Amino acid sequence: MSTKQVYSFGPDGTEGRSDMRELLGGKGANLAEMASLGLPVPPGFTISTAVCAHHTETGGYPEGLTDEVREALAKVESRVGARFGDPKNPLLVSVRSGAPASMPGMMDTVLNLGLNDETVRGLADKAQDERFAYDSYRRFIQMFGDVVLGIDHSRFEEALELYKEEHGYNLDTELTADDWKALIEQFKQIVEDETGEPFPQDPEQQLWKAINAVFGSWMNQRAVTYRRLHNIPQNWGTAVNVQAMVFGNMGDDCATGVAFTRDPSTGDNEFYGEFLPNAQGEDVVAGIRTPQPLTTHAKQKNDSDLPALEETMPSVYRQLHDVRQKLESHYRDMQDIEFTVQRGTLYMLQTRTGKRTARAALTIAVDMVKDGIITESEAVERVSPASLDQLLHPTLDPEAEREVIARGLPASPGAAAGVAVFTADRAEELSQAGTDVILCRTETSPEDIHGMHAAKGIVTARGGMTSHAAVVARGMGRPCVAGAGQLRIDEQQRRMIVDGVTVKEGDTITIDGAAGEVIRGKVPTVKPELSGEFATFMGWADRLRELGVRTNAETPQDARTAVEFGAQGIGLCRTEHMFFESDRITAVREMILAESEEGRRGPLARIEPMQRQDFVDLFRIMAGFPVTIRLLDPPLHEFLPREDADMHEVAQAAGMTVDQVRARALKLTEANPMLGHRGCRLGITYPEIYEMQVRAIFNAAADVAEETGETVEPEIMIPLVAVAKELEILRGLVDRVASEVMKDRGTRIAYKVGTMIELPRAAMLADAIAKHADFFSFGTNDLTQTAFGISRDDAASFMPTYQSQGILSTDPFISLDQDGVGKLVEMGAREGRRSNPALSLGICGEHGGDPDSIGFCQGTELEYVSCSPYRVPIARLAAAQAAIRQRKAQRAAA
Amino acid sequence: MSTKQVYSFGPDGTEGRSDMRELLGGKGANLAEMASLGLPVPPGFTISTAVCAHHTETGGYPEGLTDEVREALAKVESRVGARFGDPKNPLLVSVRSGAPASMPGMMDTVLNLGLNDETVRGLADKAQDERFAYDSYRRFIQMFGDVVLGIDHSRFEEALELYKEEHGYNLDTELTADDWKALIEQFKQIVEDETGEPFPQDPEQQLWKAINAVFGSWMNQRAVTYRRLHNIPQNWGTAVNVQAMVFGNMGDDCATGVAFTRDPSTGDNEFYGEFLPNAQGEDVVAGIRTPQPLTTHAKQKNDSDLPALEETMPSVYRQLHDVRQKLESHYRDMQDIEFTVQRGTLYMLQTRTGKRTARAALTIAVDMVKDGIITESEAVERVSPASLDQLLHPTLDPEAEREVIARGLPASPGAAAGVAVFTADRAEELSQAGTDVILCRTETSPEDIHGMHAAKGIVTARGGMTSHAAVVARGMGRPCVAGAGQLRIDEQQRRMIVDGVTVKEGDTITIDGAAGEVIRGKVPTVKPELSGEFATFMGWADRLRELGVRTNAETPQDARTAVEFGAQGIGLCRTEHMFFESDRITAVREMILAESEEGRRGPLARIEPMQRQDFVDLFRIMAGFPVTIRLLDPPLHEFLPREDADMHEVAQAAGMTVDQVRARALKLTEANPMLGHRGCRLGITYPEIYEMQVRAIFNAAADVAEETGETVEPEIMIPLVAVAKELEILRGLVDRVASEVMKDRGTRIAYKVGTMIELPRAAMLADAIAKHADFFSFGTNDLTQTAFGISRDDAASFMPTYQSQGILSTDPFISLDQDGVGKLVEMGAREGRRSNPALSLGICGEHGGDPDSIGFCQGTELEYVSCSPYRVPIARLAAAQAAIRQRKAQRAAA
Repeated sequence: MSTKQVYSFGPDGTEGRSDMRELLGGKGANLAEMASLGLPVPPGFTISTAVCAHHTETGGYPEGLTDEVREALAKVESRVGARFGDPKNPLLVSVRSGAPASMPGMMDTVLNLGLNDETVRGLADKAQDERFAYDSYRRFIQMFGDVVLGIDHSRFEEALELYKEEHGYNLDTELTADDWKALIEQFKQIVEDETGEPFPQDPEQQLWKAINAVFGSWMNQRAVTYRRLHNIPQNWGTAVNVQAMVFGNMGDDCATGVAFTRDPSTGDNEFYGEFLPNAQGEDVVAGIRTPQPLTTHAKQKNDSDLPALEETMPSVYRQLHDVRQKLESHYRDMQDIEFTVQRGTLYMLQTRTGKRTARAALTIAVDMVKDGIITESEAVERVSPASLDQLLHPTLDPEAEREVIARGLPASPGAAAGVAVFTADRAEELSQAGTDVILCRTETSPEDIHGMHAAKGIVTARGGMTSHAAVVARGMGRPCVAGAGQLRIDEQQRRMIVDGVTVKEGDTITIDGAAGEVIRGKVPTVKPELSGEFATFMGWADRLRELGVRTNAETPQDARTAVEFGAQGIGLCRTEHMFFESDRITAVREMILAESEEGRRGPLARIEPMQRQDFVDLFRIMAGFPVTIRLLDPPLHEFLPREDADMHEVAQAAGMTVDQVRARALKLTEANPMLGHRGCRLGITYPEIYEMQVRAIFNAAADVAEETGETVEPEIMIPLVAVAKELEILRGLVDRVASEVMKDRGTRIAYKVGTMIELPRAAMLADAIAKHADFFSFGTNDLTQTAFGISRDDAASFMPTYQSQGILSTDPFISLDQDGVGKLVEMGAREGRRSNPALSLGICGEHGGDPDSIGFCQGTELEYVSCSPYRVPIARLAAAQAAIRQRKAQRAAA
Repeated sequence: MSTKQVYSFGPDGTEGRSDMRELLGGKGANLAEMASLGLPVPPGFTISTAVCAHHTETGGYPEGLTDEVREALAKVESRVGARFGDPKNPLLVSVRSGAPASMPGMMDTVLNLGLNDETVRGLADKAQDERFAYDSYRRFIQMFGDVVLGIDHSRFEEALELYKEEHGYNLDTELTADDWKALIEQFKQIVEDETGEPFPQDPEQQLWKAINAVFGSWMNQRAVTYRRLHNIPQNWGTAVNVQAMVFGNMGDDCATGVAFTRDPSTGDNEFYGEFLPNAQGEDVVAGIRTPQPLTTHAKQKNDSDLPALEETMPSVYRQLHDVRQKLESHYRDMQDIEFTVQRGTLYMLQTRTGKRTARAALTIAVDMVKDGIITESEAVERVSPASLDQLLHPTLDPEAEREVIARGLPASPGAAAGVAVFTADRAEELSQAGTDVILCRTETSPEDIHGMHAAKGIVTARGGMTSHAAVVARGMGRPCVAGAGQLRIDEQQRRMIVDGVTVKEGDTITIDGAAGEVIRGKVPTVKPELSGEFATFMGWADRLRELGVRTNAETPQDARTAVEFGAQGIGLCRTEHMFFESDRITAVREMILAESEEGRRGPLARIEPMQRQDFVDLFRIMAGFPVTIRLLDPPLHEFLPREDADMHEVAQAAGMTVDQVRARALKLTEANPMLGHRGCRLGITYPEIYEMQVRAIFNAAADVAEETGETVEPEIMIPLVAVAKELEILRGLVDRVASEVMKDRGTRIAYKVGTMIELPRAAMLADAIAKHADFFSFGTNDLTQTAFGISRDDAASFMPTYQSQGILSTDPFISLDQDGVGKLVEMGAREGRRSNPALSLGICGEHGGDPDSIGFCQGTELEYVSCSPYRVPIARLAAAQAAIRQRKAQRAAA
């Protein structure tokens, strides 16, 4: 390796830059950048990630590294005016890891390296503080022993505790220099006992051992797993930062602190931070002493008794405030910084982009655009689409206590409290009586819809992120915890049991849908208001995006919510949900139980006017927008009653015996309903059902057009096509019925006929199918199920193992599997367009609301995504970001 | 159109040839060929299929056609020495359709065309038989009215019947010339009433109307549907044959007959046919008079009283016998011929390759090779692979009466009779007592295996060609009728009901698995013996094929059968079937009910020696051959008991309560088991199960190697891989356990590890998966299920509609869907080989035994197919034919 391996930074001659993150890691690159900006950074150097890669591969170091390190160390010595290992004037350093991406699990920090039995005396003299020097030394041995030598830190802690007990001390601060000296001997003994070798006295040996440990930690199990789960390449490697120590604990003119350049919680443009006088960095984090505010403003605001830095060290504060301005205008984003004050002098130890709440992200982005710091496009890139969810649902008061009794999947965000109920009917009953309820079921089915609607939140013991409960709850905007496997829900006895705790009907529980928690009792919630900036910000996103955003909705309420959230039409209206309404379910069941077409036509005629009214309502709300209506999709047996009482009712209505009803239901039962008699297979075998639906749609369109004069554009979607001929036949049916209605009503209605591409065969033979289609909508839920051969309802039993073993990095029902399912979508889009250039393309699976998947849709040049109402803003933002990324990549390629 | 449109044939100047089938149709090409051979063919001409295409497209005829027809007709006139429309000496012609492929549904034949009120008198004079002439005329009006003018033939029949009643006649033969004259007037009136126009008297007009009708019939609904179902291109078109009439009904020196050049039933090299003196062709087919044998040999053999042609017309017979020799040596295949004798002169009216039974096909092919007429390769091409099935199973006596009470799918060929039973246990019980039983179930599950084994045949009311019952029955060689939907099987009441007929336990029924029939009572069966030629013939096929043929088998009996049938190893051993044996099912269930790995290890240890013995048995039988063993595949709940008694037993064995067992079973239940917790997902989540199986396999291999010295080559197959990492992890498991066993036993065992490619995602990402695989076996059953999104167990409710509407031309579970699923197989093969050139490839779905699918496998260059034991000979032959076809195509391309 002939390239540079070590990069120095400091008051003069800094060799790195912030854009060298890949080579220097995040921490190293930002230290170099701060030094270049002239900020007071203690001098040091960074060993590059390339050295780590070499070390991982060979176990050794590239040629010349020792010389480069020695040279860089010499520069630090001369800048600080001290020498590494010098007994009189020792240079002490910190050694820290720093990967290109933030990554827990790796070796973190060794402070005070360079101390030994001799240099500790030099430090004591220099600091004129013996206690400080020996305390530093014992801290060093402890830290080095733990993170470099791999000795369990409890060994040291026990020794310290024992010593304190023996000497009647309560606090560490009571120990004197002599006490520390005695303990240091004990600590050294522990090291020798554990490693078989004495504690290394040679600072250079200490340094290389520490460097070694950092590089070695790149491959430790936790780090490897973390990278696998977060798609961080294993060959990136970490850098090592070696930096001159500064001390915030050398007296009352010393301090250490952390700060954000703006409020990370609200986004307000206020300097926000904490410090501790006479302390080391770790003390702030440890939370033993109460930190003090930075500004008098914060002091007043929080009604604090403790003096602010602005008061106690006004000149340091002014300096720090300048740093804040400099960093923000340089990085053009809110920063999270660490600093230390050593004997009145400010030192900057770290800066990085600060984490923030969704609300803060939005506020900061909008403020920075207003202040001309960033462009609208940059602002749009600054907010994580998924985080918007926090702004759309009520959340639990973060300050409140929680007695979590079970955990499941965070299936639908938001929080809700209410009394536990275990059947849909009971949920409806209590809710109508004005009680807030949480519906708890082993799993939900379409028959529970009314109960889910009535409930404030839903809990299931079984099912994944895309289980019936989860999908419906997200669609309704209800919080939901799904697949809380520890719960034993006993619907009969109206109770659930978890770890010995029994929750009976009527007991109050709270659920946190964003965290996947089921909590005993009522936890207060906070209802976040959409800040005024929200609309401004989303407007920018809308101008920047290329993908349209529609919604999956079938009830007027959902449709209205979606339009408020900015949906530009309905991408998926699942007509079967309409069939479950109580005023028609009996007729639907009668229709299903009929053994002949003739027998079906009677009940269908009774359903038709209701179905027509459904569409009238939707068309009114969606006036001017396209509405994609999927004809009946699920297997008919899903509509049949399971309970005796319901069977009785249906039998009576249909003029059959309960036994006949039961027999027919049994005959319709399927081994694998997902792959059974459903979708367009129903339309082929029972054309009268689709005919009724199409008639209802076109009559409704004509009704609304007459009433409002607004053009309604129905798009009829045929589900589950596998063979081109299926679509050819059913398109014929739609065209025929449509022209009958139009002739009858004496009007013209513009409409489209298309299909869902949701089976692998359809994606592969999209060219043939496209000949009969005006549009394709990729149904990526079913496409994922069939491509993987995984039923989403049954995946819970192995999906956790699959994720923990790194077989799947994400749940493919949440984020589109771009390698496999994505390949099918691309194939379908390409082949479909090739044979029918006028074909319009969209996606209506759950993935339509997932930011990563939306990026994929942008790449595949789909025209729109469709998602549940509460996901619409997320999709709008993700679409804008995807478009921005694509334009950047295109510019870079050009 | 400037090319030739009309082709003459006759004693001199024949313009067509037998290889012009596409242009002249089958009938026209063979008439031309016979004429060229100098055989006595009445002169005529053929209007080409290209004219039909033009007619279909434009409704009119290409320029110049009228002239060409007139010219060709003039040639016929001069050859026959008669003139079309000449009142004294009229030429009469037949007009027949003739497409390139045999195709029912089109207009067939008009005889005697050219007759009118004047020419009929000329015919009477010429034939010196007035009754004959007027009978011919009325037949002509009737036929022309029916097939050309579209008048319902019952109109004519009613008139005739009425006339006979009025005149006290019983038989047509009683009618005199005058009677026919009177009826002709009535017939002409019917034509005028129905069409509004008089019956056309102009022969040229008659001719063009008939030609028009033939071409028009190409597009009639029945023909269009037939072509769609049989993949005959719609643009082929039919030809029209116009040929001078000859009459077999002009007196006792006349006759008409049909013959096969060899016995089509046995294949014996004997001239085989029938004739009727003084009759027209249609009379032979109509079956009113008993036809007479051709040869005295046949007369003696069948103990017939009627004189043979050889006796009554010895010279004609000798001439016909010469024709037989000439045609066979010319066509080099058995021919099906039609002839007419007019006043002592023989005329040939048709020759075509004769249909024959499987046995005859085999015998003829082998004989012809022995006689040096055809090559071995040609012989192999002559026998339909599917027809071999007839030779492998007992069949019902075709002569016997059948009272068919229900029809289902011909799921497994062969016939069987026995008493109906409705549970597996009862089947076993009665069978052990020596009674033949037919097991009738709504559907079967793995728990019925022992009953299916005990039964002579299986009937189900539900399920398709690849339902559990069908697959297992074929594997066992048991006849099976599946999905007989009219049956209402009541297992509780031990009876089944169909259309008011009740079959109780103990009632005898017969099933015909090849026809899909359930028959009341006992129909005698015939057990066909494999003729000595079978082995010779199959030997030729084996030398010519390139694909290996393995079998799907897990029991010693199946394995032995397959080896006898020529299998070269096991391509799929489904280990789960072994788990159902009664000596281990309780341990298996205990294992499944355990809640922890520890709890599973106990029962697994008890299963291991039994599993090991299973493999020892298989390895012994398959010594020297590869054995591909698929590790456990089905969802665990499939093994759990459903009946209370079984639950009780398991509960006792596992030390649980029945309620606990029931609860656990419920918890394991899945919404879509096909897409659930199965296949390698079990191996990932419960590695101890796969470890046990792998240990058993390698110990068994070592056992057999020690015992026999023969090398056993286990191939471990991991099912249901969707993600490369799954295979990587489980290959690691196999390698680890294998090396432990080998170390333990101090031996080396060569083995392979591979996977089934049975999910679309796996096929698409085959490159990544192939990195961890020694072999791929395409599991086209599951691949078809997932590509189409169709569960084979649930397809019965719509598959018939799909086939009748032409959406699917064949059931994709029977013959591989080459457009869609085939594309996935090709992708998997190509990508797999690209990343791992050493990869070996095979197929083990049901399609491995389907001839068309085997052709596809040859094209995709797979190494072997694997199929159920009884399909092995079929696969061997189909593979040989596929190889021959491919070599021909390659030669043609070169």
